[in-house]
Amino acid sequence: MSQEPTLKGACIIGQSGGPSSVINASALGAIQAAMRADCITHVYGAEHGIRGILNDRLFDLDQEDPAELELLRHTPSSILGSCRYKLKDFSEDETDYRRVLEVFQKHDVRYFFYIGGNDSMDTCNKISKYMERVGYDCRIMGIPKTIDNDLYGTDHCPGFGSAAKYIASTCMEIRRDAVVYDTGAVTILEIMGRNAGWLAGAAALPGTFGEDSGVDLVYLPEVVFDIDNFMDDVNEVLRQKGNVIVAVSEGVKDKYGAYISEYGSENAKFKDAFGHAQMGGLAATLTSIVKARTDKKVRGIEFSLLQRCSNHLASATDSREAFEAGKSAVELAVDGVTDKMVGFERTDENGVYGCKIKLLELSEVANREKRVPLNWINETHNGVTQEFIDYALPLIQGELEFITENGMPRHARLKKILV
Amino acid sequence: MSQEPTLKGACIIGQSGGPSSVINASALGAIQAAMRADCITHVYGAEHGIRGILNDRLFDLDQEDPAELELLRHTPSSILGSCRYKLKDFSEDETDYRRVLEVFQKHDVRYFFYIGGNDSMDTCNKISKYMERVGYDCRIMGIPKTIDNDLYGTDHCPGFGSAAKYIASTCMEIRRDAVVYDTGAVTILEIMGRNAGWLAGAAALPGTFGEDSGVDLVYLPEVVFDIDNFMDDVNEVLRQKGNVIVAVSEGVKDKYGAYISEYGSENAKFKDAFGHAQMGGLAATLTSIVKARTDKKVRGIEFSLLQRCSNHLASATDSREAFEAGKSAVELAVDGVTDKMVGFERTDENGVYGCKIKLLELSEVANREKRVPLNWINETHNGVTQEFIDYALPLIQGELEFITENGMPRHARLKKILV
Repeated sequence: MSQEPTLKGACIIGQSGGPSSVINASALGAIQAAMRADCITHVYGAEHGIRGILNDRLFDLDQEDPAELELLRHTPSSILGSCRYKLKDFSEDETDYRRVLEVFQKHDVRYFFYIGGNDSMDTCNKISKYMERVGYDCRIMGIPKTIDNDLYGTDHCPGFGSAAKYIASTCMEIRRDAVVYDTGAVTILEIMGRNAGWLAGAAALPGTFGEDSGVDLVYLPEVVFDIDNFMDDVNEVLRQKGNVIVAVSEGVKDKYGAYISEYGSENAKFKDAFGHAQMGGLAATLTSIVKARTDKKVRGIEFSLLQRCSNHLASATDSREAFEAGKSAVELAVDGVTDKMVGFERTDENGVYGCKIKLLELSEVANREKRVPLNWINETHNGVTQEFIDYALPLIQGELEFITENGMPRHARLKKILV
Repeated sequence: MSQEPTLKGACIIGQSGGPSSVINASALGAIQAAMRADCITHVYGAEHGIRGILNDRLFDLDQEDPAELELLRHTPSSILGSCRYKLKDFSEDETDYRRVLEVFQKHDVRYFFYIGGNDSMDTCNKISKYMERVGYDCRIMGIPKTIDNDLYGTDHCPGFGSAAKYIASTCMEIRRDAVVYDTGAVTILEIMGRNAGWLAGAAALPGTFGEDSGVDLVYLPEVVFDIDNFMDDVNEVLRQKGNVIVAVSEGVKDKYGAYISEYGSENAKFKDAFGHAQMGGLAATLTSIVKARTDKKVRGIEFSLLQRCSNHLASATDSREAFEAGKSAVELAVDGVTDKMVGFERTDENGVYGCKIKLLELSEVANREKRVPLNWINETHNGVTQEFIDYALPLIQGELEFITENGMPRHARLKKILV
């Protein structure tokens, strides 16, 4: 890298992609580290990620009350706003890049920190490469965030542990409710994760308390989902226990590669095989399929946004690591690092969980996905192995203090003063 | 009442109807009071409510570990199992009543405590009247429970405060997520309460923090739901804020008395007017209606079982009152009271919330419903008044300790040894 050890200028922090319970903990880590750094002259927040830069809508975070900023640990979703805006390659169209450069120059921005998933790392990578090409001295770092846990090159991602804790805890609570009648019921839980089954796998964590603690069956999108096998599994558990609770990743597909969630939709080729057309997601589709094939009460529950915004059930481990990721990205950039994403390396010793920061090339991370290893899925494709449990369990440990006002969550209230 | 002050014998505690986050706190209050009472010789739990008595399946609660019983405060749903079994009038068919008497006699049961909603109070009332008629000396008390808060004669019901706290808190978290993009979105939250809008109204509680803290619009089943007015409301908020979050009671009906949730179903008369047939509930139906009429992203979220089983977000006020209701029912019965439901009377002083136990005739409570007063709903029928807020806010105050093991809830593990 060609930068001098000390680069003086403003910094921009942005958030992008789907929110999580702890993406604001990363923002807080970055904001506080940037405020401490002598070489960082101003700390700005981009409204709605990269679009805030393109629109020159930057919040002056230096004017925020430090106590309100501290509450970002306890505030879900992306406080600065998010976006899903994909930059074209600059070889194709330089317009956006010239605009980013213009805004960076206008505010003397020398540091850019972008918190997001693999699309955001792609944005980060492209801007970094463009600034290098035009010779604008600027340090650019990616800070990982995704409940899906599918970022390449890092042991796990900030956001996953809290979503996993929500899913595991909620599955336990739902079990208590769903088996309460003696009349038998099928309960189908739809969990996020279009291509990777990390979150669905988290539904298996209560199994560490015994098989009647959480869900009975777990289906990940890494393996083919077969309706007949699924019904056999459901009927077998019903036969044994009288009730069955199933967790299914929203992304499960059949052997032809068709999403099961689209079986009932207007254009689905399988529409007629299962009766009515319908507009719901996977839980609704599976519910209607199971209803047609059993005489039990069938209920579908979609965890929807709740699994990614329930900060009140965040993992303290995840929150701490999210904060550290933001803090480290700024500290490393101040020390001269650029064009990297901070990631996690696991450093367990004697069975005790450990985790340290490592650096990854942005270009390596951008647009790639990490899926659950096939040998972490059981042979019958309706559960996970002990390796998965051992991997995920440390990430959900610890509880954040639940800070309330008038019996409800006390979230950060920022002034959001535009520059 | 003709009972002697002291009546010696065993007691049965049962749970019935839909579970709540704190119905086990009521069970704990009753169990511990019964164990302390000299005149109560054994403490039994009926498996699946009245069906456990009919089937002579009683758990010997005296054999449970007191520390595990204590965890009932932190365990959602009905630990003994529930049922929805309606007894016929004994003038019509005495079979069930004779069986109940037989089981009571077999185990020398002289106390029966039934925790449930208005159907359960009906069961309680019928058994009480039958035992009186046949001259079997027995004290029978109802302990209220319903997240719906629709029991007659009591200021509020155990279970409501915790469900309301879940709804209010979750609405705040969802708002943070649902408005995160700059592209505009309509988010529709479906809340339980078939005939009474107490729970839907709880979605308005975050409004005490300002209008951008929770949901924008709230629809209760006490007033007619008009699709055109609803769309006008939605569009107006979209115009002002760019996003809109709506809370709707599952029970809203149009001016003809038809459930909106059934608009899309196979047999609904309005099916064609709104396109595709569909199987979901209200959130799915409204989502498809709004989708057809806006270009925004529309998402429906059903709080489903989560609103009644999320003990980790229980109201400490509600949990304490639920416990007290169970405890008082037993202590009052020991003192000679029978054929009553314990209820709550509000005793606020100088604006400070207060609540004391009162007694209601079972026959008064059975099969009646208490709905939200119409003057607590705003004139535009899309929100609640300050009276509603003042009523509900004290009930969601305080948090229970979240007791965990391995990062997940530590629920009570009972041995459930059959007598």
